[in-house]
Amino acid sequence: MKRTALVAALVALSASLSAQAPNWIDPYKPIAQRIIAAAQADDFAWRRLAELTDTFGPRLSGSDNLERAIDWAVDTMKKDGFDNVHKEPVMVPKWVRGNESLDLVEPVRQTLPLLGLGNSVGTPYGGFESDVIVVKNFDEMEKRAAEIKGKIVLFNAEFVSYGATNVYRTSGPSRAAKVGAIAALVRSIGPTGLRTPHTGATVYTDDAPKIPAAAIPAEDANRFQRLADRGLKIRVRLSMQAHFEADSQSYNVVGEIRGRELPNEVIVVGGHLDSWDPGAGASDDAGGCVVTWEALRLMKKLGLQPRRTVRVVLFTNEENGSRGGNGYRDAHTAELPNHVMLLESDGGIFDPEGFGFTGPEKAKATVVSIAGLLKSIGADPVRDGGGGADVSPAGTVAKAPLMSHLAEANYFQIHHTPADTIERISPKQASNNAAAIAVMVYVIADLPWRLGTEK
Amino acid sequence: MKRTALVAALVALSASLSAQAPNWIDPYKPIAQRIIAAAQADDFAWRRLAELTDTFGPRLSGSDNLERAIDWAVDTMKKDGFDNVHKEPVMVPKWVRGNESLDLVEPVRQTLPLLGLGNSVGTPYGGFESDVIVVKNFDEMEKRAAEIKGKIVLFNAEFVSYGATNVYRTSGPSRAAKVGAIAALVRSIGPTGLRTPHTGATVYTDDAPKIPAAAIPAEDANRFQRLADRGLKIRVRLSMQAHFEADSQSYNVVGEIRGRELPNEVIVVGGHLDSWDPGAGASDDAGGCVVTWEALRLMKKLGLQPRRTVRVVLFTNEENGSRGGNGYRDAHTAELPNHVMLLESDGGIFDPEGFGFTGPEKAKATVVSIAGLLKSIGADPVRDGGGGADVSPAGTVAKAPLMSHLAEANYFQIHHTPADTIERISPKQASNNAAAIAVMVYVIADLPWRLGTEK
Repeated sequence: MKRTALVAALVALSASLSAQAPNWIDPYKPIAQRIIAAAQADDFAWRRLAELTDTFGPRLSGSDNLERAIDWAVDTMKKDGFDNVHKEPVMVPKWVRGNESLDLVEPVRQTLPLLGLGNSVGTPYGGFESDVIVVKNFDEMEKRAAEIKGKIVLFNAEFVSYGATNVYRTSGPSRAAKVGAIAALVRSIGPTGLRTPHTGATVYTDDAPKIPAAAIPAEDANRFQRLADRGLKIRVRLSMQAHFEADSQSYNVVGEIRGRELPNEVIVVGGHLDSWDPGAGASDDAGGCVVTWEALRLMKKLGLQPRRTVRVVLFTNEENGSRGGNGYRDAHTAELPNHVMLLESDGGIFDPEGFGFTGPEKAKATVVSIAGLLKSIGADPVRDGGGGADVSPAGTVAKAPLMSHLAEANYFQIHHTPADTIERISPKQASNNAAAIAVMVYVIADLPWRLGTEK
Repeated sequence: MKRTALVAALVALSASLSAQAPNWIDPYKPIAQRIIAAAQADDFAWRRLAELTDTFGPRLSGSDNLERAIDWAVDTMKKDGFDNVHKEPVMVPKWVRGNESLDLVEPVRQTLPLLGLGNSVGTPYGGFESDVIVVKNFDEMEKRAAEIKGKIVLFNAEFVSYGATNVYRTSGPSRAAKVGAIAALVRSIGPTGLRTPHTGATVYTDDAPKIPAAAIPAEDANRFQRLADRGLKIRVRLSMQAHFEADSQSYNVVGEIRGRELPNEVIVVGGHLDSWDPGAGASDDAGGCVVTWEALRLMKKLGLQPRRTVRVVLFTNEENGSRGGNGYRDAHTAELPNHVMLLESDGGIFDPEGFGFTGPEKAKATVVSIAGLLKSIGADPVRDGGGGADVSPAGTVAKAPLMSHLAEANYFQIHHTPADTIERISPKQASNNAAAIAVMVYVIADLPWRLGTEK
């Protein structure tokens, strides 16, 4: 027993020594504590998120709601005392959902929940009536191509993970069109909710006709499957007014805390202000906007001015076009070599889960040391894979390290649904995520060396 | 230590002796085991529930769906080999929801989820636009009566329990009309879901004008509260086509297993086949219909014919009229003195939680002994309070003991919502509830004495 205890003590000692941070991190420890304490002192982040989502609602590209939210963000950042607050013009697509409906005709008449997929075309006026063929995957679709021709296909693929299953939403409609389907229904990409439909973009390919595409809740997909398995005919009327209008003027919102020594070196943080239309876009991605924005506000509040510039960008049109991320890259081409690191928050602001990182191994080690300052709020893990749809276009050209903020516990339950509202997020979660990003970004911006140049 | 162990053993022995069932229960033990085993042997109950809800969908009084479900139930009971299968005519109200919508106009334009309350009147064609005054309870409404006059009131009462909170749905609209409101919105009666609205009947009183009444999800009620707390004006357009049409012909479904010795003494079990329109009425109350129906099917399957008659009644029009329960009472007036006990299942078929009982104390002791046979499936608790909207009208006249089947764990999460579908219920739950009711009802129907006549 004594021997074992001695060995255990030695192992613990050795682990503690090897985990000890290098000296450079020490001065940042009290600063990190101050930032965390300031973030946790009130529910400012949550209240800002509530104000944004309550006042402006969903913010689909091309909508007045989005542009009003953008103007509010500019005004509010100015009031926060940020430097260089402005908006940068980006033309965005304007997809309009219009009225849409799905009515079961056989075996019984019933109106069912439906949520058209973003980018979908509409049906002819009044819709059309058709049998529905239910398939579980693309293999079954290919095998039953002859049956599907001229009919509506339902992809009833059980949700495994967003990465694994959303191919049915993105590629399913065009693949169905290739075998002659006249419309595609997709089981919602997410865990079974409370009859909750999930929208999201579909991506038409050029080698097939564009057919109307919409999501139905998991419960309805299961019901269709059971009806089909019993040999019953399923017939529906699908009506969708979805269409595109002319591109619309929108903007990325930019605000900064200028660096005290190297103002031309820039760390970018941000999320996207646009959202899908059924919910309030609270987790996707007003939350990401607010917690990255909060990172700068917390620095400002504490009088922390790092060596380099920290820039928050609230991107437009992530959901159905990525025009904001591409627009930022194009507007800042000359400046991209001075981009030190870009961090995106677009995976929810539930309990902090740390960060994703893409970049040199030695830069990752630096980031791991900084993340160690966030152990008390659970934000210390660093896993491989950083960036996102908004920051990666610029980051890729800049060849800069890319990071993602991670806090996605309940994200796919409400992702792209009417339930993406602030009720899912607690004030504590909002504050802790703001603190995590503030500490990470402040230290990177203040490092004695430029992140990514570690030898 | 030894002393304590001895005392504990004596206590255990004494408890075991006092809990020992009287002799009459002994012959029913193997029968109860056979019934439970037969119910658990397959997922028949769940599949029947799936067939009912998948094939006929929601079954609002006055709808074709309900009448088709009724005819299917009659046919299927006949195939089950029940005695005296027939339907009994009942005229039911026909409330039609029509199109309905709630559009936020200020502070931003947005279409919001809405679910009109059953029995509500509609708005003028095209709806009307009005400010919304948010109140947390009736007291606040009375205090702010002057503000409310000519406007829409929102009752944002947090859900405490169905019994405590549904007064806002039932009485709120007429009380609001009395202070001059032109329409009433009610925070949905249920825990916060996934932006899930709950419908249900409102009850107009004669001393106030009938004003349109509808439910909104908890999330939207909270948002309105926050906007109002910030001093912002909330303005909406409410449009509802809700109206009544002429009463419609419907039916209660009746099937029996005739008693082998006392066929004129009747035990009634049942639920209601009608449902609200947004979901599939799986928990409310196709589940109650199926598990009470299954009680008879299991007896039939096992060749169990009790002394007295067991009758299953699938009532029509529980939700918005109680015409089925009243109709049964009126059609069976002469026979009511022979009603031994009436049991209703209308609180979900989640994990069994036992039974509610109203009747003589000594009859309750008999029921407690029978429930003891159901310990292995958790259905042994017996609490005070039995009956329900369907069986109580007849039971009250008959002065017979009334029982409720209890299994309501997740009931109010999905009650009167689009999410009341079979996905919420497992095959095991359906089988165990069928077994619980079958055992309880078989033994009561077979008792050497008539339940309620215990000395």
